[in-house]
Amino acid sequence: MGERIYNFNAGPAALPLPVLEEIQAELLDFKGSGMSITEVSHRSKWFDDVIEDALERTKRLLRLGDKFEVLFIQGGASLQFCMVPMNLALEGKPVAYINTGTWSTKAIKEAEIQGKEVRVLASSEDQNFSYIPSGFEIDQTEAYVHFTSNNTIKGTQWSAFPEAGNVPLVCDMSSDMMSRPFDASPFGLIYAGAQKNIGPSGAALVIIRKDMLERTPDHLPTMLKYTTFSEKNSMFNTPSCFVIYTIGLVLKWIDESIGGLEKMAEINEKKGQIIYDILDRSSFYRGTAERASRSLMNVTFRLPNEDLEAKFVAQAAKAGMGGLKGHRSVGGCRASIYNATGMDAVETLVSFMADFEKNEG
Amino acid sequence: MGERIYNFNAGPAALPLPVLEEIQAELLDFKGSGMSITEVSHRSKWFDDVIEDALERTKRLLRLGDKFEVLFIQGGASLQFCMVPMNLALEGKPVAYINTGTWSTKAIKEAEIQGKEVRVLASSEDQNFSYIPSGFEIDQTEAYVHFTSNNTIKGTQWSAFPEAGNVPLVCDMSSDMMSRPFDASPFGLIYAGAQKNIGPSGAALVIIRKDMLERTPDHLPTMLKYTTFSEKNSMFNTPSCFVIYTIGLVLKWIDESIGGLEKMAEINEKKGQIIYDILDRSSFYRGTAERASRSLMNVTFRLPNEDLEAKFVAQAAKAGMGGLKGHRSVGGCRASIYNATGMDAVETLVSFMADFEKNEG
Repeated sequence: MGERIYNFNAGPAALPLPVLEEIQAELLDFKGSGMSITEVSHRSKWFDDVIEDALERTKRLLRLGDKFEVLFIQGGASLQFCMVPMNLALEGKPVAYINTGTWSTKAIKEAEIQGKEVRVLASSEDQNFSYIPSGFEIDQTEAYVHFTSNNTIKGTQWSAFPEAGNVPLVCDMSSDMMSRPFDASPFGLIYAGAQKNIGPSGAALVIIRKDMLERTPDHLPTMLKYTTFSEKNSMFNTPSCFVIYTIGLVLKWIDESIGGLEKMAEINEKKGQIIYDILDRSSFYRGTAERASRSLMNVTFRLPNEDLEAKFVAQAAKAGMGGLKGHRSVGGCRASIYNATGMDAVETLVSFMADFEKNEG
Repeated sequence: MGERIYNFNAGPAALPLPVLEEIQAELLDFKGSGMSITEVSHRSKWFDDVIEDALERTKRLLRLGDKFEVLFIQGGASLQFCMVPMNLALEGKPVAYINTGTWSTKAIKEAEIQGKEVRVLASSEDQNFSYIPSGFEIDQTEAYVHFTSNNTIKGTQWSAFPEAGNVPLVCDMSSDMMSRPFDASPFGLIYAGAQKNIGPSGAALVIIRKDMLERTPDHLPTMLKYTTFSEKNSMFNTPSCFVIYTIGLVLKWIDESIGGLEKMAEINEKKGQIIYDILDRSSFYRGTAERASRSLMNVTFRLPNEDLEAKFVAQAAKAGMGGLKGHRSVGGCRASIYNATGMDAVETLVSFMADFEKNEG
């Protein structure tokens, strides 16, 4: 095996090394079954234990209580963009969205395609999505209020969630799920593509408040109804077994090795602070998100020009740091520092950043 | 590591051992990237090579020529049950189905949910789906004719495909995809959940004739349009990377270790013959499918009574053979002998069957 790099990918992203080592160790023989986890039946005791553990741990880590159900659905967050309005819209009520970037925009588009009455309550598009809007009004006629908790591409994150009164919040938490604890009670539905903080690509984790299941219209295709996944414990059809298995191992790592979400959040705050400190001290690096809206998951920044940005990314790669190029739609640099990208990675990066500034600044 | 068993699971099912060993060997460092295949970006050169190889090999193994595109879509065959009528129905024309069991029935139901005019051309439900119907009429007004090439639960398989003239065939090949060569030209669309012959669960392989893409209505949700997957090379959003990677390795194994689909089919025919021979010679074991309709993938059979069936399954498990219990909806026994369940497994099974009959018969 070659050297493992420090992985700052935005998604698919780093997984905890102990998780990968556990997968590797039992890949040919899962728990004495004589089969790989990819070969056992999803109707077997072996897989039952896997999915139950992942579901229970999600509920426990997020302190969901018994008002919520946890589902695994294939298709990533992008399929959720269409399932949300299909299942949760209400006749005669608008569906409301807050637009904070690329992913919110896509979610809005899918509600519009379905002919729903879409109300965009606020948008930060006027400043290239560099901030999280505030001061917008929720007038309590909305079927739900949808927002994106962390904006992977623009490097912004909601530090406190919108207050929606009795209107259920719906949230795409793809890129900060399990990075910090939060109070789930104002949420009707939360979804997260797995491939950032909680596992490999190929599944979305969906958390639904039980009363929201009553909204699912009868006439929907079976595989597009939240009720199908709820009634069949996410196994109406064969689920993405390997992905769920890996998510379970990641959750176990957060739970048992890190010590839970409070600890995870502490580490994530420290990691973010170390990088933002160098951005703030420097006139060479420039953060692109407004301070109050900065993401602890994706740190987006620019260098004085694009040539230097290309050089930065290339030299970092040579020094064993990958994934630092910004999203192709915005350019610049981005360090994604999800749960599995540890303090050692962040310290190596800031030390490299300081040297690079000294040499090129 | 413990002993690997002989795996007769119906799906998720056995994978070739060399494939699992390759995954295991490079799980912490994929091709010198310093990352796991689960950690590399789907927009990277590394994953580009993976998906391109899987797509190209599919086209080459099946001799698809340039009239077809190959797509990977999450959600398994069950999501295809709904995507097929959504995308391929035509105004004023019926969609036609042949009902050969559980999966065909589910496919029909999804077309009905969408309010399509469904014409069931033939059904073998009168004999508990123990045969493949023939002599039905396709009157050329149909938008497509859908059938299930192999019926995992009932143990039947189409040995020759229906003749539909100019009406495009649509086929669920989930359980015999890549088990034998066939002429793709009469097909408008073929789909296969990966978890039987070609990989782990979590993706469907979809083969679509290019002209069929013109049928996709504009107003569909983005993630439910075949055109979305075609235009973005199956990467409109993050695909199920690990599953596609594993499918690629399985296809490489078929291609390079087995020597292609003709060889694969020869082996599969021999395997089937050996088990059906013992069923035919015995009055103890009784095959449930009519002879002309027997599946080479799933051999379904009964013993004189349910107690003996339970004993058979339990003793086989002790002797290192797993997955021999019939589907929970039909009972009895079933030996699924997909590509990766080798001749050694089949020979071990028939030898056990002979001994069991001697002791209990």
